[in-house]
Amino acid sequence: MVTIRDIAQRLGIAVSTVSKGLNGAPDVSAETRQLVLDTAVEMGYAAKRARRQAQPKVCVLVENMEYANIGQFGYEIVAGFRLAAAARGWAVDVLPTTPEAQARTKYGSLLLEGGYGGAFILGLTPQDAYMRALAGTGTPTVLLDNCVPNASVGYVGTDSWEGVELGMRHLAGLGHRKIAFLNGTRDSMVSEERRLAFLHATWLCGLSADERMMAYGYYEQNCAREYVPHFLAQGATAILCASDGIARGVLAELRRLGLRVPGDVSVMGYDDLPLAAGCEPPLTTIRQDRLALGKSAFSLLDSLMNGVAVSKVLLRPQLIVRESTGPAPVRK
Amino acid sequence: MVTIRDIAQRLGIAVSTVSKGLNGAPDVSAETRQLVLDTAVEMGYAAKRARRQAQPKVCVLVENMEYANIGQFGYEIVAGFRLAAAARGWAVDVLPTTPEAQARTKYGSLLLEGGYGGAFILGLTPQDAYMRALAGTGTPTVLLDNCVPNASVGYVGTDSWEGVELGMRHLAGLGHRKIAFLNGTRDSMVSEERRLAFLHATWLCGLSADERMMAYGYYEQNCAREYVPHFLAQGATAILCASDGIARGVLAELRRLGLRVPGDVSVMGYDDLPLAAGCEPPLTTIRQDRLALGKSAFSLLDSLMNGVAVSKVLLRPQLIVRESTGPAPVRK
Repeated sequence: MVTIRDIAQRLGIAVSTVSKGLNGAPDVSAETRQLVLDTAVEMGYAAKRARRQAQPKVCVLVENMEYANIGQFGYEIVAGFRLAAAARGWAVDVLPTTPEAQARTKYGSLLLEGGYGGAFILGLTPQDAYMRALAGTGTPTVLLDNCVPNASVGYVGTDSWEGVELGMRHLAGLGHRKIAFLNGTRDSMVSEERRLAFLHATWLCGLSADERMMAYGYYEQNCAREYVPHFLAQGATAILCASDGIARGVLAELRRLGLRVPGDVSVMGYDDLPLAAGCEPPLTTIRQDRLALGKSAFSLLDSLMNGVAVSKVLLRPQLIVRESTGPAPVRK
Repeated sequence: MVTIRDIAQRLGIAVSTVSKGLNGAPDVSAETRQLVLDTAVEMGYAAKRARRQAQPKVCVLVENMEYANIGQFGYEIVAGFRLAAAARGWAVDVLPTTPEAQARTKYGSLLLEGGYGGAFILGLTPQDAYMRALAGTGTPTVLLDNCVPNASVGYVGTDSWEGVELGMRHLAGLGHRKIAFLNGTRDSMVSEERRLAFLHATWLCGLSADERMMAYGYYEQNCAREYVPHFLAQGATAILCASDGIARGVLAELRRLGLRVPGDVSVMGYDDLPLAAGCEPPLTTIRQDRLALGKSAFSLLDSLMNGVAVSKVLLRPQLIVRESTGPAPVRK
């Protein structure tokens, strides 16, 4: 078991200085504090400090995801995590993160300094420094929609294969034979899964898969302007989108082109954010139960902190039928 | 909410008879009892009765799997489930089941009669009556190594893709280029996943996939006699098996053929049952953490009983290197 004394010996400084560095005392320089923290992490001191706590304290790190109000994707995920943690008496800090902050403070040091025994991380991209740090961490960590090959790190998400299949079967059941898929960002594990799921579901529905019927949009509205005319030129009568935001953009673009929804083209969203029901017409979508995602992230973190090496927890998506989808138009 | 009165009305019998039927009173005939139970389940009465309990009571149903002593596959799974349930104050009954018992008592009726709010089921085959019943059940149920498309039913298992890849990378890293895979029973979701994982891992390791290098054994020893000579004729220098029991059979067959392990042929098991370390030579294998499987099954059942529709929980396998694998022999 690594002690404060071991850290002091390794660094050739006084035990009291190590203690001050670990506890953020003001009479130790920022450089020394950082050195003490990074050395403590390297030597495996973090786990011990976290183990000392009767009630664990964990953090939720958020990047690239809005969670401040109930209309945003992250809100209920964070709320679900907090609810489950509160029921068990765990303390939770929610901390935004940025690439700059990640360059300044190493992942292990951030957790050690805060006294966190584990973390739930939302919205990291593969380019993030913390993403690379996760490959080697010994701290129990849960990622939303991201996988890392490390037994200390688990993944929670909604089953993309099932979600895309629900959407495609709904559209195919309405008689659509040419269905386009406006995916999310190219650089994401979930987008890649959904791309494969789209091709697979096309085949399951007895339609012919066509890569030209798929494009990577972004999780933003303006990608519709670029891709919708292209899909229509290929004969698409339905467009499945990877988020409700993208679908709202597609609705706006179809309106601009003078086309009716669902009379001429059916449109489906993904996620079932509050905005989906407020679209004109209200969006048919694939619901991700975000409260359940947050609660499941907590269960998974609890498992990892108890030495149960869960790698994946997948939730079921749900088809929500509203008015933006209808029978395929009869072709002249 | 369905009441005893509703059931009595539907059946045209007295409320007191329904109550007696539900509670197994001796002065009601077996036929009436069964009719009351089946009707109650059909009308959705089960959930209500289970909800009334302060501390849930659940059952573990076991078929086709030995769990009586620590050397058997199911033992630690059941133990892990019991441990996690005990920590939360839940009552657990472990009940063996058979095709005959399933024909006699419907799944919903069994649960209602026992007052079980949920179940964890081990070892069902696709032919089982309960497997079909699970497609429509409203009772939270967790299956080991089996999927059912129903939001009330979740699946827990060890990640087959990761497990087979660990094994194949270990063997390929020892220089083996011709690796055979002696799979489990044909009629199983896990066997099918492992077949695909074997083909995928072959490709990942830069080897050429060859369906002749794979066969469905059984989870028994005697399949080795049939398939080992066939694999050797194809040039196999390593045999990955889908269970430690199969691998023990392969070791015996190689001994009978006068071949050395690992000098002439490397052999790997799967599961890391206690028997693996006792083989001659001790088996290299892919460990499934069975205690963790049981604990995770409990967490998943807890989620389902709280309305969190988790569909899958996958655990990480672990490579355990012993003496049955070694460098590929130099070919003349």
